[in-house]
Amino acid sequence: MAEGKILTGAGLRGQVAGKTALSTVGKTGAGLTYRGYDVRDLAAHCQFEEVAYLIFFGELPTLQQLQDYKQQLKALRALPDALKQVLERIPAQAHPMDVLRTGVSMLGNLETEHSFDQQQAVANRILATLPAMICYWYRFSHDGVRIDENTDDDSIGGQFLHLLHGKAPNALHEKVMNVSLILYAEHEFNASTFTARVCASTLSDMHSCITGAIGSLRGPLHGGANEAAMEMIEHWTTPEQAEREMLGKLERKEKIMGFGHAIYKDHDPRNDIIKQWSAQLAAEVADTVLYPVSVRCEEVMWREKKLFCNADFFHASAYHFMGIATKLFTPIFVMSRVTGWAAHVMEQRADNRIIRPSAEYTGPELRQVQPIEQRIAS
Amino acid sequence: MAEGKILTGAGLRGQVAGKTALSTVGKTGAGLTYRGYDVRDLAAHCQFEEVAYLIFFGELPTLQQLQDYKQQLKALRALPDALKQVLERIPAQAHPMDVLRTGVSMLGNLETEHSFDQQQAVANRILATLPAMICYWYRFSHDGVRIDENTDDDSIGGQFLHLLHGKAPNALHEKVMNVSLILYAEHEFNASTFTARVCASTLSDMHSCITGAIGSLRGPLHGGANEAAMEMIEHWTTPEQAEREMLGKLERKEKIMGFGHAIYKDHDPRNDIIKQWSAQLAAEVADTVLYPVSVRCEEVMWREKKLFCNADFFHASAYHFMGIATKLFTPIFVMSRVTGWAAHVMEQRADNRIIRPSAEYTGPELRQVQPIEQRIAS
Repeated sequence: MAEGKILTGAGLRGQVAGKTALSTVGKTGAGLTYRGYDVRDLAAHCQFEEVAYLIFFGELPTLQQLQDYKQQLKALRALPDALKQVLERIPAQAHPMDVLRTGVSMLGNLETEHSFDQQQAVANRILATLPAMICYWYRFSHDGVRIDENTDDDSIGGQFLHLLHGKAPNALHEKVMNVSLILYAEHEFNASTFTARVCASTLSDMHSCITGAIGSLRGPLHGGANEAAMEMIEHWTTPEQAEREMLGKLERKEKIMGFGHAIYKDHDPRNDIIKQWSAQLAAEVADTVLYPVSVRCEEVMWREKKLFCNADFFHASAYHFMGIATKLFTPIFVMSRVTGWAAHVMEQRADNRIIRPSAEYTGPELRQVQPIEQRIAS
Repeated sequence: MAEGKILTGAGLRGQVAGKTALSTVGKTGAGLTYRGYDVRDLAAHCQFEEVAYLIFFGELPTLQQLQDYKQQLKALRALPDALKQVLERIPAQAHPMDVLRTGVSMLGNLETEHSFDQQQAVANRILATLPAMICYWYRFSHDGVRIDENTDDDSIGGQFLHLLHGKAPNALHEKVMNVSLILYAEHEFNASTFTARVCASTLSDMHSCITGAIGSLRGPLHGGANEAAMEMIEHWTTPEQAEREMLGKLERKEKIMGFGHAIYKDHDPRNDIIKQWSAQLAAEVADTVLYPVSVRCEEVMWREKKLFCNADFFHASAYHFMGIATKLFTPIFVMSRVTGWAAHVMEQRADNRIIRPSAEYTGPELRQVQPIEQRIAS
């Protein structure tokens, strides 16, 4: 792709930092592919666990393989007691991404990856425990409830909603969670995935790589755009008000989250999909505010700035219609992207060179240490 | 430096990923400089806190500034109760780097960095708590002792030895800890520092950046070489045996840790310094084995392979002479390098663009999802 390009400086933009067989982003003819499949095709026909299998093993599973894999993940849902005790010590006002970062790190103390032979097992275990990890902390710190994480839900998305709300979700909600987790599962060398690969390149363990990736996804320039979108639109009660406020923001040159993308130029293929599902959820709850407000925002941004909704914008309303607290939006991203992260770690390990770039030095020339008594305060 | 070079592919070697005013590695005329000062000059004349001040604020402190800064760090030593309770739940057989990764991550839940205005305060706090974090876990899990971390030791290195051994160190040991912490404090865009900068580039918080960096330093291709060196040399009882064993390893093409360097070509400037101090410690304990064995290893590797000792090799014997368990060697690296990591995070934030490189795609071409019943097991 960018092989042979001249260095462009900041952010390594356009510089090839390695090879991947996992996904393409913004390539001609297909907006986003995982292992060669268009994400729209996957979201229309697959369950999330099926896509996780694809990302890890390179091919879509047969029915038997999918059943076996789901059974395997279900058997890995229980949290160790020591991990629960740690989660109980994290206050309600903590940042939920800090909770997951700490939870995965703690799991690494209790179930250390001693050899790369264990990498798939460790990845499965992290994937299977994330919904319980976030919900255990959330319910304990917010409601004083110690949930039982060993539910019999068929899917990861279903289990998450069950643990969060204390009852199994309906079919529509479970379906939308599946779609959402598919859409966020993998996205080439984004900053959190690249963090995981840099860590993997030192031959560190899987928990370190995932912990680091969570920390990077936490940043407002990366994860968290759907939370920011929600915080914006939840204050508006009519499309007309939304339009007025949006125009005001544009005039004041305020940053509006959920629009545009660093790589996609005129369209995010994930938006069409989640928008449809958000519409269905709106119909289910007879919403006459949030969905119309969201649609108007989309229209205004395209008309005024030719900026399109990215994956995050209609995720805000979709999650909200399912009763998910805004602060849990980015943790759902983790529950999904952990598949891409772990697969990138394994790919990096399989053909590794330590990632160690150079820096342009801009500091002072060589100078001599003066005795401390002779120094003058700067 | 490497501006305008053609991309070289794996590991971003030689590719400029950003600017730094913090250090130079392997530049002509000076092997390693921090803010323009030769590390040999700093190790000869400064305390570690003085160098930490230099790395953070750009200039060496006056006597008053140094006293104030040390006082400030001393006042930040106490661990929160919830953090101690977490450390008590980490088993003795855990990897000590996993302990620090979890400890710093947990601290982020309890004392979240809510604004970049707090960045220096957060960096100071992490710097001040690391010795207690590692020693609290180590003494509790190994000896069943709950240590009191609020000691009155003058320096971070002194406090570490005090907490570890339950008594204040002598002047020689405190001096060597100071030197060691200076030598490891900063090293440009190495993999752990680069991890911290990638994380910082999403505008994530300081605890996420440091947590990620610890995870990368944990990898055997990065931190941990001094532990590997110790595990090798501790089995040898005479220089002659060491020579025989080394020659055997070379013949069998086994990897020998503690020699050579990715960037330094014929010399690691840090080796001369730590070697001298290791010799003094050997004299203090009347050692007639480990130091002569180490010297013979150095001679053999240079004679046979023209490979020189890097910073790690004589650190092994130096730490051992001070009664430090081998598994705590890499955590000491963290106690030191946290200064460089945090300074790089602040530097990245001050002139940021999200670090998001490209990948060369090597996966399958576009294909269509087949109905699950029609798939064949791969």
